[in-house]
Amino acid sequence: MKIAILGASGYGGVELLRLAAEHPYLEVTYCAGHTSAGEKMSDLYPHLPPPLGDIVLGDIAVGKAAAAADILVFCLPHSAGMDMVAEACEMGKTVLDFSADYRLKDVAEYEACYEVKHTHPQLLSEAVYGLPELHREEIIGSRLIAVPGCYPTAVILALAPAVKHGLISTDMLIADSKSGVSGAGRTASLTTHFSEVNESLTAYKIASHRHTPEMDQELSALQDAGKLQVTFVPHLVPQIRGILSTCYAHLAKAMTVAEIHEVYSDFYADEPFVYLHPLGKVPATKHVSGTNRCDVGIAVDERTGRLVAVSAVDNLIKGLSGAAVQCLNLACGWEETTGLPLVAHWP
Amino acid sequence: MKIAILGASGYGGVELLRLAAEHPYLEVTYCAGHTSAGEKMSDLYPHLPPPLGDIVLGDIAVGKAAAAADILVFCLPHSAGMDMVAEACEMGKTVLDFSADYRLKDVAEYEACYEVKHTHPQLLSEAVYGLPELHREEIIGSRLIAVPGCYPTAVILALAPAVKHGLISTDMLIADSKSGVSGAGRTASLTTHFSEVNESLTAYKIASHRHTPEMDQELSALQDAGKLQVTFVPHLVPQIRGILSTCYAHLAKAMTVAEIHEVYSDFYADEPFVYLHPLGKVPATKHVSGTNRCDVGIAVDERTGRLVAVSAVDNLIKGLSGAAVQCLNLACGWEETTGLPLVAHWP
Amino acid sequence: MKIAILGASGYGGVELLRLAAEHPYLEVTYCAGHTSAGEKMSDLYPHLPPPLGDIVLGDIAVGKAAAAADILVFCLPHSAGMDMVAEACEMGKTVLDFSADYRLKDVAEYEACYEVKHTHPQLLSEAVYGLPELHREEIIGSRLIAVPGCYPTAVILALAPAVKHGLISTDMLIADSKSGVSGAGRTASLTTHFSEVNESLTAYKIASHRHTPEMDQELSALQDAGKLQVTFVPHLVPQIRGILSTCYAHLAKAMTVAEIHEVYSDFYADEPFVYLHPLGKVPATKHVSGTNRCDVGIAVDERTGRLVAVSAVDNLIKGLSGAAVQCLNLACGWEETTGLPLVAHWP
Amino acid sequence: MKIAILGASGYGGVELLRLAAEHPYLEVTYCAGHTSAGEKMSDLYPHLPPPLGDIVLGDIAVGKAAAAADILVFCLPHSAGMDMVAEACEMGKTVLDFSADYRLKDVAEYEACYEVKHTHPQLLSEAVYGLPELHREEIIGSRLIAVPGCYPTAVILALAPAVKHGLISTDMLIADSKSGVSGAGRTASLTTHFSEVNESLTAYKIASHRHTPEMDQELSALQDAGKLQVTFVPHLVPQIRGILSTCYAHLAKAMTVAEIHEVYSDFYADEPFVYLHPLGKVPATKHVSGTNRCDVGIAVDERTGRLVAVSAVDNLIKGLSGAAVQCLNLACGWEETTGLPLVAHWP
Repeated sequence: MKIAILGASGYGGVELLRLAAEHPYLEVTYCAGHTSAGEKMSDLYPHLPPPLGDIVLGDIAVGKAAAAADILVFCLPHSAGMDMVAEACEMGKTVLDFSADYRLKDVAEYEACYEVKHTHPQLLSEAVYGLPELHREEIIGSRLIAVPGCYPTAVILALAPAVKHGLISTDMLIADSKSGVSGAGRTASLTTHFSEVNESLTAYKIASHRHTPEMDQELSALQDAGKLQVTFVPHLVPQIRGILSTCYAHLAKAMTVAEIHEVYSDFYADEPFVYLHPLGKVPATKHVSGTNRCDVGIAVDERTGRLVAVSAVDNLIKGLSGAAVQCLNLACGWEETTGLPLVAHWP
Repeated sequence: MKIAILGASGYGGVELLRLAAEHPYLEVTYCAGHTSAGEKMSDLYPHLPPPLGDIVLGDIAVGKAAAAADILVFCLPHSAGMDMVAEACEMGKTVLDFSADYRLKDVAEYEACYEVKHTHPQLLSEAVYGLPELHREEIIGSRLIAVPGCYPTAVILALAPAVKHGLISTDMLIADSKSGVSGAGRTASLTTHFSEVNESLTAYKIASHRHTPEMDQELSALQDAGKLQVTFVPHLVPQIRGILSTCYAHLAKAMTVAEIHEVYSDFYADEPFVYLHPLGKVPATKHVSGTNRCDVGIAVDERTGRLVAVSAVDNLIKGLSGAAVQCLNLACGWEETTGLPLVAHWP
Repeated sequence: MKIAILGASGYGGVELLRLAAEHPYLEVTYCAGHTSAGEKMSDLYPHLPPPLGDIVLGDIAVGKAAAAADILVFCLPHSAGMDMVAEACEMGKTVLDFSADYRLKDVAEYEACYEVKHTHPQLLSEAVYGLPELHREEIIGSRLIAVPGCYPTAVILALAPAVKHGLISTDMLIADSKSGVSGAGRTASLTTHFSEVNESLTAYKIASHRHTPEMDQELSALQDAGKLQVTFVPHLVPQIRGILSTCYAHLAKAMTVAEIHEVYSDFYADEPFVYLHPLGKVPATKHVSGTNRCDVGIAVDERTGRLVAVSAVDNLIKGLSGAAVQCLNLACGWEETTGLPLVAHWP
Repeated sequence: MKIAILGASGYGGVELLRLAAEHPYLEVTYCAGHTSAGEKMSDLYPHLPPPLGDIVLGDIAVGKAAAAADILVFCLPHSAGMDMVAEACEMGKTVLDFSADYRLKDVAEYEACYEVKHTHPQLLSEAVYGLPELHREEIIGSRLIAVPGCYPTAVILALAPAVKHGLISTDMLIADSKSGVSGAGRTASLTTHFSEVNESLTAYKIASHRHTPEMDQELSALQDAGKLQVTFVPHLVPQIRGILSTCYAHLAKAMTVAEIHEVYSDFYADEPFVYLHPLGKVPATKHVSGTNRCDVGIAVDERTGRLVAVSAVDNLIKGLSGAAVQCLNLACGWEETTGLPLVAHWP
């Protein structure tokens, strides 16, 4: 299948390019950039040898991409590709969107959160939230996949079994997430300036990050007690890749950690990319770096009856480009794990 | 005043040595090490030029230290200095203990937590918890000061104003703390091995860290609703210094963030080492690195009515050796800020 | 082909395990460790999910390995596997040795450098130095391959074209190399302790590193002016992977940088794993991280008539385990690039 | 004495502000910024509490600065302050210039290197190169001090004793320097973007860095064999502060490393800020981080008769703002070490 990457100059785009180039059933036939149209990939990324380095970026134009490819992946900021996604869908292409435009089912919530008018709300019901662990059946054969945000992937997978099975009360869900700096993209700024970031650690967008409604939507759908709301605080950590989410909730009833572990173990029993750590252990981000895995571990604060669930993802793979390939594998009817790394380089 | 450092070969000890050497009223007259007795400081720490580098470490013997100094600082693991502390007190020395031995008022809690018998429980009522922001009056003139743990310093100062003034309900207090690696000390191990730690991030001792009872003790004492219990989860972050604590609690009643900020502002108005960030901002660990400051910032999740309080300390200064000097300044009747850095090197 | 890894618990071993597991023609049938015999790989390396994590380490015993596999790779310190290598050769196995035992052709030089008696000097003429760029023909079909040191790989490939074609005088060759910390292995020590290593940078084993004789041997063999001697100074840099070697020499005669670049370009024209950067550019270690590439770039100091050649390798891949697989591919008659990554994860 | 800082918003300026604020004889009375005029320092640097954080930046105007202060420090890019420096000199102020404008004695060399016309060449003979170890007498009482570049400080101090005493032949001097990222300043760019810089290492401006003529000038002046030329290659290393320079040269005649060490030891015997490491040891950048020290260590490659001299400085202190204060201390007749840190925070 021929694939076009619109927005190949960012970290998500170049990681997708690498994964697609190594994928046995994909052929990259069009790469596009905005300010970098006309440039060679090796000018932007000197680590890319030929043939990838020799790719010349085209315009971000849905027509050109559609002429060249069957699958169109939009790696653009929210709202920038909203109309092109709709156009591509109409042309019958398989479309993946890295932005938030088609993730939220509630158009009002989207518009309030992103402060922009949604121009194609009718597509929202058709779009699938690209988290195979919750939506595998819908993704198979789907034509419009909204790739989840990196933080929601980690938080949702940490809490899903507990929410689904009513193990925790939903009146106080805390998600304290820590992310490496690559999540901020490639645009240089003071907040990603090495000398300011290294040897430092901070919280940002406290309880106001735009990824929060995704967590609320997906976790709420797992239970019938109405809409739940996560208090989500992201942090910036001096490392390149990796998100660690530490999630807190009251247990709904007294359970041992072993019982809870068994619920998690059953929930993820057949998941190729979720690795539940054995009882007593939790993941580190390095465990999953460079892979499409989400590792999960749990503990219980027995003094207070609280669950602590910890998850780790590589924000650019399971948190973005790898998730896209995983969804594509499902959408196209290929083996779900095709072309996706499972074992991290160590150290 | 002459000061002896017992356990000068660790990070806490060498940082205290530096601070004491720069302090106008202190003279370091005895340094001791366990396995390093007989060695020169410059053999252990090549960055130390003469005269500090020329100091030869003596034995960890309370008699020798007492003969040489008026102030004895024990920078030893818990229980290792328990008896020597008591001896030094009997000799009428001013004593500071970096370990947990004299921090907890409840001897049973100490013994359960540290799995060791307390040999001098009668001293616990005399010992002062060395957090000047809560115990300044007791520290003035005190002869036995238990220097607080690094994590408790950050967590307690983040939550103290809210607990004291009943702003939050105490039935779910979460402290999610992230620490640099220097908190693990200088002993080499796989968990502090550069290649394993760098570019990684993990949680450890989930809801089972020994610093938790200190938080419970000090925060409980600020209110009258009985014993409260913090769910405390520490994390290891790939940086050398710094602790960031993100603390979560339900608001006890509806308040604006501005109102809460004013309570915090009043609470810390006269504190020389607590810097409350302006509304809308929270600290990063780099802000306080190399200083004796604890920076605090707050936010409110208005959707859910939760307080998020963030604090940052340099774990080796305000979290350890600087706190000791701050307490010494008070105990000896000197200006509280003497010899203590307020402004970080940047970047 | 079945492959046994003796010394699978170190960084070289676990990286070889990963590469071998992803290799289409290799099956790992035996893994062994010294102190870790009897343990599961996932106990040593929690990032390894089943089936790799479920491998139980056997003894480092050549008989057991030979019974299980056709190819034996010894990932042991120098002299520890010297006799087993000889035994395995006698059994007709294909043998790769990560240590220096069979790299140096001059047994006296080996014994002086490593301060140990060589017990099988007769094998030295049979052993091939596993740098395909210089010894491809000898490696094809070879049964005993000495995998080069990480530093020599970088230094030799930076200078080989210039030495071979007489572009530089050999009376002053300087190789200033900088390495990430993973080159020091997994054994915890103060020199690999995160807090000591991070935010620091130093030189070590100045002009006395054991990798120097390899550089001398391989570069000397490229010309007929007798034995040349490299002044080699390694440095430790606060990053995990990567070696950058900056090499200096006088030009033997006046040449433009473009002329020299052409010589290099011809020399490496058919090399699948050497990427010569375009004129005016030099590599960074991140360009090759996670790949089996050695990137090279050159510049000339026109004021003084000196060549500056810069090379970059991932010390654990092209500098070790990837080089072993590249040699194996040649030795076994497979396509040289089989199972070896060419494109780095970015960033 | 009252001091004005023109260009207080950069790393050099803010570090000077900190040092000046802690200096017993200096009072900062004017701070100025270009694009940041009108802003509060705490808006630019949230780590600065009052009173430093409350300073409002004025215009970069020599008249305003001169009205407020006796000492004017220009922390501006080359040529930006060239005319203001001359004006301030005419007003009789004590002037320090962080730029290269008044460092080179040869105006033609300056103009060729910086590609700009020098508008006040007559001041060059009056200006002193602010390296007290070579120019102490001239600095005492001087009114115009050109603060040296960070790289030249490290390279010159590594080689000065050897050049001065004719220990090395000057026909091949190699200076391979490695710098932390703070040397690139605070302006965000792709080359200082955390995700691109961390876990990477590269050379840049090979044999073309503008600091080279300073090294040539100062080292040439130490001997009478005419102009010597250094081959200088800077590297960027993933750490914030610190420069390590590894310098290579042929020995002019056979000498033992102990004999050379004695020459160095004599040369630096009375220097308060140069610490010569004992025989067999060389400095790491962490040894000097946060201090005004330059540490030096030497070794000899006995096989080839080459000297290897290694030096380390904190690029923002001994390499910039600390050097300025050291010169000011001399110029104003104060104790040379006043207000300058000698001992690094560790770790």
